[in-house]
Amino acid sequence: MSTPSAPHQLDKKAEAWSALFSEPMSELVQRYTASVDFDRRLWDADIRGSLAHAEMLQAVGLLSAEDGAAIQRGMAQIRAEIEAGQFEWKLVLEDVHLNIEARLTQLVGDAGKRLHTGRSRNDQVATDVRLWLRGEIDELLALLAALQAALVDVAERNAEVILPGFTHLQVAQPVSFGHHLLAYVEMFARDAERLVDVRRRVNRLPLGAAALAGTSYPLDRERVARSLGFDGVCQNSLDAVSDRDFAIEFTAAATLCMVHISRLSEELILWMSQSFGFIDLADRFCTGSSIMPQKKNPDVPELARGKTGRVVGHLMGLVTLMKGQPLAYNKDNQEDKEPLFDTVDTLRDTLRIFAEMVGGITVKPEAMERAAKKGYATATDLADYLVKKGLPFRDAHEVVAHAVKTAIGRGIDLSELTLAELQAFDARIEADVFEVMTLRGSLEARKVLGGTAPLQVRAQVARHRTRLAG
Amino acid sequence: MSTPSAPHQLDKKAEAWSALFSEPMSELVQRYTASVDFDRRLWDADIRGSLAHAEMLQAVGLLSAEDGAAIQRGMAQIRAEIEAGQFEWKLVLEDVHLNIEARLTQLVGDAGKRLHTGRSRNDQVATDVRLWLRGEIDELLALLAALQAALVDVAERNAEVILPGFTHLQVAQPVSFGHHLLAYVEMFARDAERLVDVRRRVNRLPLGAAALAGTSYPLDRERVARSLGFDGVCQNSLDAVSDRDFAIEFTAAATLCMVHISRLSEELILWMSQSFGFIDLADRFCTGSSIMPQKKNPDVPELARGKTGRVVGHLMGLVTLMKGQPLAYNKDNQEDKEPLFDTVDTLRDTLRIFAEMVGGITVKPEAMERAAKKGYATATDLADYLVKKGLPFRDAHEVVAHAVKTAIGRGIDLSELTLAELQAFDARIEADVFEVMTLRGSLEARKVLGGTAPLQVRAQVARHRTRLAG
Amino acid sequence: MSTPSAPHQLDKKAEAWSALFSEPMSELVQRYTASVDFDRRLWDADIRGSLAHAEMLQAVGLLSAEDGAAIQRGMAQIRAEIEAGQFEWKLVLEDVHLNIEARLTQLVGDAGKRLHTGRSRNDQVATDVRLWLRGEIDELLALLAALQAALVDVAERNAEVILPGFTHLQVAQPVSFGHHLLAYVEMFARDAERLVDVRRRVNRLPLGAAALAGTSYPLDRERVARSLGFDGVCQNSLDAVSDRDFAIEFTAAATLCMVHISRLSEELILWMSQSFGFIDLADRFCTGSSIMPQKKNPDVPELARGKTGRVVGHLMGLVTLMKGQPLAYNKDNQEDKEPLFDTVDTLRDTLRIFAEMVGGITVKPEAMERAAKKGYATATDLADYLVKKGLPFRDAHEVVAHAVKTAIGRGIDLSELTLAELQAFDARIEADVFEVMTLRGSLEARKVLGGTAPLQVRAQVARHRTRLAG
Amino acid sequence: MSTPSAPHQLDKKAEAWSALFSEPMSELVQRYTASVDFDRRLWDADIRGSLAHAEMLQAVGLLSAEDGAAIQRGMAQIRAEIEAGQFEWKLVLEDVHLNIEARLTQLVGDAGKRLHTGRSRNDQVATDVRLWLRGEIDELLALLAALQAALVDVAERNAEVILPGFTHLQVAQPVSFGHHLLAYVEMFARDAERLVDVRRRVNRLPLGAAALAGTSYPLDRERVARSLGFDGVCQNSLDAVSDRDFAIEFTAAATLCMVHISRLSEELILWMSQSFGFIDLADRFCTGSSIMPQKKNPDVPELARGKTGRVVGHLMGLVTLMKGQPLAYNKDNQEDKEPLFDTVDTLRDTLRIFAEMVGGITVKPEAMERAAKKGYATATDLADYLVKKGLPFRDAHEVVAHAVKTAIGRGIDLSELTLAELQAFDARIEADVFEVMTLRGSLEARKVLGGTAPLQVRAQVARHRTRLAG
Repeated sequence: MSTPSAPHQLDKKAEAWSALFSEPMSELVQRYTASVDFDRRLWDADIRGSLAHAEMLQAVGLLSAEDGAAIQRGMAQIRAEIEAGQFEWKLVLEDVHLNIEARLTQLVGDAGKRLHTGRSRNDQVATDVRLWLRGEIDELLALLAALQAALVDVAERNAEVILPGFTHLQVAQPVSFGHHLLAYVEMFARDAERLVDVRRRVNRLPLGAAALAGTSYPLDRERVARSLGFDGVCQNSLDAVSDRDFAIEFTAAATLCMVHISRLSEELILWMSQSFGFIDLADRFCTGSSIMPQKKNPDVPELARGKTGRVVGHLMGLVTLMKGQPLAYNKDNQEDKEPLFDTVDTLRDTLRIFAEMVGGITVKPEAMERAAKKGYATATDLADYLVKKGLPFRDAHEVVAHAVKTAIGRGIDLSELTLAELQAFDARIEADVFEVMTLRGSLEARKVLGGTAPLQVRAQVARHRTRLAG
Repeated sequence: MSTPSAPHQLDKKAEAWSALFSEPMSELVQRYTASVDFDRRLWDADIRGSLAHAEMLQAVGLLSAEDGAAIQRGMAQIRAEIEAGQFEWKLVLEDVHLNIEARLTQLVGDAGKRLHTGRSRNDQVATDVRLWLRGEIDELLALLAALQAALVDVAERNAEVILPGFTHLQVAQPVSFGHHLLAYVEMFARDAERLVDVRRRVNRLPLGAAALAGTSYPLDRERVARSLGFDGVCQNSLDAVSDRDFAIEFTAAATLCMVHISRLSEELILWMSQSFGFIDLADRFCTGSSIMPQKKNPDVPELARGKTGRVVGHLMGLVTLMKGQPLAYNKDNQEDKEPLFDTVDTLRDTLRIFAEMVGGITVKPEAMERAAKKGYATATDLADYLVKKGLPFRDAHEVVAHAVKTAIGRGIDLSELTLAELQAFDARIEADVFEVMTLRGSLEARKVLGGTAPLQVRAQVARHRTRLAG
Repeated sequence: MSTPSAPHQLDKKAEAWSALFSEPMSELVQRYTASVDFDRRLWDADIRGSLAHAEMLQAVGLLSAEDGAAIQRGMAQIRAEIEAGQFEWKLVLEDVHLNIEARLTQLVGDAGKRLHTGRSRNDQVATDVRLWLRGEIDELLALLAALQAALVDVAERNAEVILPGFTHLQVAQPVSFGHHLLAYVEMFARDAERLVDVRRRVNRLPLGAAALAGTSYPLDRERVARSLGFDGVCQNSLDAVSDRDFAIEFTAAATLCMVHISRLSEELILWMSQSFGFIDLADRFCTGSSIMPQKKNPDVPELARGKTGRVVGHLMGLVTLMKGQPLAYNKDNQEDKEPLFDTVDTLRDTLRIFAEMVGGITVKPEAMERAAKKGYATATDLADYLVKKGLPFRDAHEVVAHAVKTAIGRGIDLSELTLAELQAFDARIEADVFEVMTLRGSLEARKVLGGTAPLQVRAQVARHRTRLAG
Repeated sequence: MSTPSAPHQLDKKAEAWSALFSEPMSELVQRYTASVDFDRRLWDADIRGSLAHAEMLQAVGLLSAEDGAAIQRGMAQIRAEIEAGQFEWKLVLEDVHLNIEARLTQLVGDAGKRLHTGRSRNDQVATDVRLWLRGEIDELLALLAALQAALVDVAERNAEVILPGFTHLQVAQPVSFGHHLLAYVEMFARDAERLVDVRRRVNRLPLGAAALAGTSYPLDRERVARSLGFDGVCQNSLDAVSDRDFAIEFTAAATLCMVHISRLSEELILWMSQSFGFIDLADRFCTGSSIMPQKKNPDVPELARGKTGRVVGHLMGLVTLMKGQPLAYNKDNQEDKEPLFDTVDTLRDTLRIFAEMVGGITVKPEAMERAAKKGYATATDLADYLVKKGLPFRDAHEVVAHAVKTAIGRGIDLSELTLAELQAFDARIEADVFEVMTLRGSLEARKVLGGTAPLQVRAQVARHRTRLAG
């Protein structure tokens, strides 16, 4: 029967890796090569994976019921120890896998030594990372939905608020502030789409690939896949242990999401700058200055913008890591974990904080509208007006350019020119032109599908609500 | 009626952008800001997009049938001129869009000036790039399928060939050379999956977003989408003109594909090195040396490995480009094209050349098998043998480590130890152990799903053939 | 004697690389592996390098005077042909080196065939690139000096102009606009320092390393180094042919310079936005919109900001290229050229255009000063005032925070509080406080070395002028 | 006098940043924005910087002797507490600076509150990071010297050992193994040169720039610079607080060094692979396998190769961080620290471990020489022989290509052809050719400066020893 055993070979790792080795690792090398300081966060996935493996070993007759029960009992105790913060993680045992296996063998003896049958750390770690990442993706999807919902709420409340729409950061045309925010909802919706696509490729089981070639034990890989909720098994053992596509693809998706965050952050920072003065962020997302008593700084969006670099760096690091690696597993791959873990942490914290922050934005409609009046934002409306009167668009564009030049010279808005003055540019202009040149008129007119008219904004709000509820 | 018109404002761009501007662009600025040298490759997409736009303008009553016919006639002539290499591209007209529009107006007069109604270059270029990229993705998918098919063919022919499987570039376990190649089929299959996912997000129509806010003309965007084969329209005008996610996502997918190419290249280079001597590449994929008369160098895989850096660089460039950009369109975005174009070109040429090269590899089975015998590749089989005799795996692993150490010390293989000598390590060892320790025995034994046994390799070949035919 | 010879082996490259090869390269492979389309820009360096090599071969007795003269004559003709645009570059001859050598042999016969004695394309290309890059660095240094000089001029003219200094894009303290511009002079000065450092490492001669191992001919490498103006020779042949550090280091320096350009561009774009309205750029650096007639967009700074991504991408591409390459030369290295060339072109064009653009900025001092009054920019001055009255800084900071809060609540500036109201926050405040709280007073007060006081700005202007003249 | 004071405003940060703020930071925001978890490693630099600042404040009369003494006493105690692990770092106090200042004020009262006079965290953190990095660079330079020395020793011992020199991983020409190792000495010597260059730009003092504009206190910045060992002061306050060039430049230099490490690692891994079998690494730098009992894997070089990606990622992250940031300090910059710290740690650990590992390499000269005989490595020598007999090099190259083709066809080496057979290719060949075609003869012949002849290798060893001793 399985009984707690005497010190065994895993305990001797401090001396030498196995009987094959004639000298122990130096302390520096141990620290350099060990991963337990960061991969211990995989402990839950590691235990779940081991239990599913053991259950299958038992089902196919490679493990006795007694040993299976011992492994379950041991793992339950290990789980309790870890959750209580009482598990002793040992650097000398390299990684989360050997730490848990060694403790298991300490607790349940030979049964623990049998757990690794038909398995290698190569397929084990690949399984652990996929299991863990799948859970994280599900949490990120929930956070992305929350952020979208928060944006949709603010957008609805601000459907009628007029913001100067910029291109090239020059005033272009008036847009609804709600419409502007919904542009970010589109981006985050695409990010969620991408994560769903990545999840499909994450959710395949490597276990059973063993070191690289598969195993001579008659494992039932499909059974393990089902019990762990995987959609299927990796179909090639060499690929299974060396594939890190899912980590790179996830990090690329996270990078895009952070790029969107960086764009929103840039705008929040601009809008909160005194020269714009379009919004205010709640105090709890800002900090002050150690020297300037008047300062209230938009730290959270600034830091989020900065953290984009961090995630971009992780993507670059992972790609560099995999480039040119021959099959199958190489130790280089151990370096996949820290960037992946930090990407998940950064994205999760950022999404959570943005979902909370967005709802607390104070909007200053007067400042926005005042700014919208500065840059001849309705010049296009005047051109369109002329087109409707029969002028070809290119000619209308040129007529209005002349009118704008005159208005700039006199320091006034187009709408401040008299009808007679306007008619000097083109005789087709009539009194109804002044309505066309108001900000509100311009806004309401853009009611094409996807346009900025409040009517359209409300339709999009409804569409997003349905989508997010779905 | 539409008649060829006198010189108009587009022709005056050399002098000043429009009536608004008081001085012409300097020649250096013109060169710095113009894109026509590289974006002219979008000409076909630009014409198709314009024709669909014109057809819709006509359908909703914004363009007369006469003007519509004139535009079609003009565009047909422009198409003919471009295809004949007779179209005169002008730097002063900045980009492909203005070049074509200016020529159109030259040819058909006012009808040409009416084409830009309800449209901006911002939504026009976004539409062009998406149309063009969609076509390129379809071609890349065909090339990926061809490369997979070529690999599957070589894999089938080499299902029984024994290669030393490496981990850490140390001999690990014998694998089927066919199995090894199928690992790359898995990678390229995932690359194709990713491209299909990207294509969905590429295939949405921005046209109708105009400059940034939508338009006041009652455009039928869904109609344009249908006529151009888009799956739907972009739902937010600000997002439509500023979104470059699809370019980044495509380049990220291309990067992963090039990483796979770089891994295969690394192996081809290793295998062709004299110390391995596993394969030979056809002469037509190699070059010689200007100084060393004996050289035959694997230039194609080396260059492909090098070109991975190029695509990685493009990905990083695009991400850096978009980071922190406020909405909506900024001129920075013009820089999206060259990296995207070069990524497509690089990936297409590389896939095409690899699909051709892979089929022409000369395999040297004796060299592979000789190498597989060097590193105690069947030590795991001996451990598994002991497990089947009742030893826990961890103990079996340790017993074999002792045996290997002894064999290394004597410079012989495990299979060259006598039965008595083996039994000294563990008494459970019997005469049947020698079959277990052969390369062939090891290979055949790994018949778990996804394992390296030739039986499994053939099953995978069949699965891939079905998949690729589907 | 040297006479024009019959077709020789270089001409047969279309058929096969050398006698060793049994089949010609496919057209696709030729296109994939050839570099002559981009490396032909090295032609001048290639000829200069070859002439120096030939001169040395003659000096050490490896080449007859007659052959030496023939080579000089042939190269003169080739130079003339290239400059006249009449040289026929052939893809089948792969690269600039073989194109020139083949033409030389066509022109001067056996003498041409003797030129490659003791040389390989591996050391030849490394020499060419270094020679070429050295020249480009010298031109970039001149452009950096011109840009600094232009900034110093504008800074001097604007030493007294008050700009709101931002941290976190929140109004922080008033600064001199001249002082602000001089911050960029510091950055570009460091960029120049770095280029000088890089130049030292570029300026070492690889020629003589031959393929990888040196040569058995008694070459005088020091003589070649002197005649080409190199500071010394590469001391290890393997390193000489495989080192691309200089390309990476140059691109890293260029990246930093572009990052500085991107920061300046960001500010120019912000300042030209209507909500700031601090400056105007000359029309010739801007473009308009195809749809919005009123638009004048800061295209040049936007594009420059965007081109930062391009150079960053090249840096990443080059690093990825070299990572993990075994010695000595690998074909991957051919991929070093396009990113290096494009980096040089991008940086050169950008610096040239910025040097011109900066001088033409229209400064709007009233708008700047108006903005500086918005954010309690002199609150620190009030705190410093209290410190000088004996309050510890931390307590003074807190007192002023209370005062600012009150002022914000009433929508007024600190200086609009009455003396009595100010004294309610701290009794030490006296009437002299109002001078301290003016923008001008704040500016003048910061006369510490490196501070923003106009006095300091003028001192820095003088220092830079001396430095740039030196 | 200075006495321990009651709780002050820094202690209230849990409630609100200052009197200006109406609500406390949320716990999530605190965690998101705080840096004390990682920037605490700057504590020693922070204290040294503060003491130098205080000493100067006293010297210029801004601080009483009593307060100065109190600050010294308080800092001594804080130093002791930190070194003893008893200092209580508080997240609520954000960063290392406020943690130390708050504790100081707790210990010495008002004197502590006076320390921040004329200083901001913006210039304080920039000073701390530069001080810290300068020390790290000095340590890295020592490690680079140690690694070079170790390589030089191994190179000297192996000056006569013949290795097949590769280009394109194809056997090219025989090289001395010592010569090969010295190529890496060149690389690491350049890395050291670069670090020395970076150090010059790191070693400039920002302190005195205050928040961004300098200060109204008459600080003596030159005095602080001298007392902290800086070479000079930053000359522009805006640049001083926002410049992160030094971090990027350092990381770029570290990236190049890691690229060199990755190249050496790639070769160590190749050489240790059974098919090469050129070297063995000491057991203490290797690990085994959890499944394959025979495995001894070169973990350290693999991991070092992988860690190259990590450092490349940090470089990319830092560049992305700074791109497009307006002046002056933005919170984004807080994200500069973690990548910089991790780059230093990674490079330091890697250099240390390589300096140790290199000396313990077991060289297998027979295997190297056997491999050198496989690829017609002396074919160039035969061509050079013919040149010396009067044949132009290009013709000699072609003659030898024919000879090699014949030899390959018969499966023999060039030297196994008879004299008569050789003469059939060119009549000028005589009996002395056979000496020319030996590996040793080829090696000894390459005695050009920088060539592979053992004579040259020893000369280089001597040169490096002198240089490293200097």
